[in-house]
Amino acid sequence: MNGYDANKDDLQKRLRRIEGQVRGIARMVDEDKYCIDILTQVSAATKALETVALSLLGDHLSHCVAEASAEGGAVADEKIREANAAIARLVRS
Amino acid sequence: MNGYDANKDDLQKRLRRIEGQVRGIARMVDEDKYCIDILTQVSAATKALETVALSLLGDHLSHCVAEASAEGGAVADEKIREANAAIARLVRS
Amino acid sequence: MNGYDANKDDLQKRLRRIEGQVRGIARMVDEDKYCIDILTQVSAATKALETVALSLLGDHLSHCVAEASAEGGAVADEKIREANAAIARLVRS
Amino acid sequence: MNGYDANKDDLQKRLRRIEGQVRGIARMVDEDKYCIDILTQVSAATKALETVALSLLGDHLSHCVAEASAEGGAVADEKIREANAAIARLVRS
Repeated sequence: MNGYDANKDDLQKRLRRIEGQVRGIARMVDEDKYCIDILTQVSAATKALETVALSLLGDHLSHCVAEASAEGGAVADEKIREANAAIARLVRS
Repeated sequence: MNGYDANKDDLQKRLRRIEGQVRGIARMVDEDKYCIDILTQVSAATKALETVALSLLGDHLSHCVAEASAEGGAVADEKIREANAAIARLVRS
Repeated sequence: MNGYDANKDDLQKRLRRIEGQVRGIARMVDEDKYCIDILTQVSAATKALETVALSLLGDHLSHCVAEASAEGGAVADEKIREANAAIARLVRS
Repeated sequence: MNGYDANKDDLQKRLRRIEGQVRGIARMVDEDKYCIDILTQVSAATKALETVALSLLGDHLSHCVAEASAEGGAVADEKIREANAAIARLVRS
């Protein structure tokens, strides 16, 4: 069981939409669309990916990390360390 | 003619790769992969989109904005204003 | 007791350094330094603030959130919800 | 002459405010304020620094880069290359 289990449909819908956005950006390049209009779509796709990441991370903290913390011990410490590293990657990306 | 004309193949290659990354993330969700591993891929796709944006923006400044500035006048001002707005969207996304 | 208790000296040192960086940026503006050199310092100060945020957040998850999760109940849910909101603000800033 | 010349007062005012924000964050740490409240202030200071960066960059493009482009040649190319590198640092910070 994963933290995102209850949100799987929503995540899939968002990811399919992002995949379509990226395909649309490739098409804009192909059709020589204006740079600034392409950039607007790239910013939108980036924001949509961030929303997916925040959703996954929120579910992970609410479930995996919360449950490991309730049990305590080395596994809990490792889950926290791992979540912190994922947050750092996200903030810096 | 667009600023990115000379980089079209490279852009298309990058965008196809990002499209594949996003499809891979959807598959990971489908196969109940571990949240943190999915997040790592989302961060990678986000960074790849940022690289595309920086490439498009660099080409835009080097060509469209530089040429408009060389001509001067209201068109040049408008190009600069437009580029600034695109940069702001990018920095804040 | 706060999660960052054991890191207080380190945090204070970092924050004093960032305060000095910001004062230095103001001085560069005052002395008409070159825009790009000022921008380099602004990027450095921004990154330093992000490091402070990631340190605070890591300590918060390791202590406050982990302890609340160990106790469970509504307080634990609220701590997680609050941490998720802080992470979202950070990722989007 | 720098691009930000006409905005010097505004920049100085913003930077003094950010310096005060950072000093306030150090005081919050000193007074053992709640982690999440400190994080909110760190996000606000980070956003304020980004606004300074976007203002400096906008002025730089409108003046230094536009003027160099109007003259053309190697200096113009170098200005564009330098601006692109500054934008990349900003987007990745």
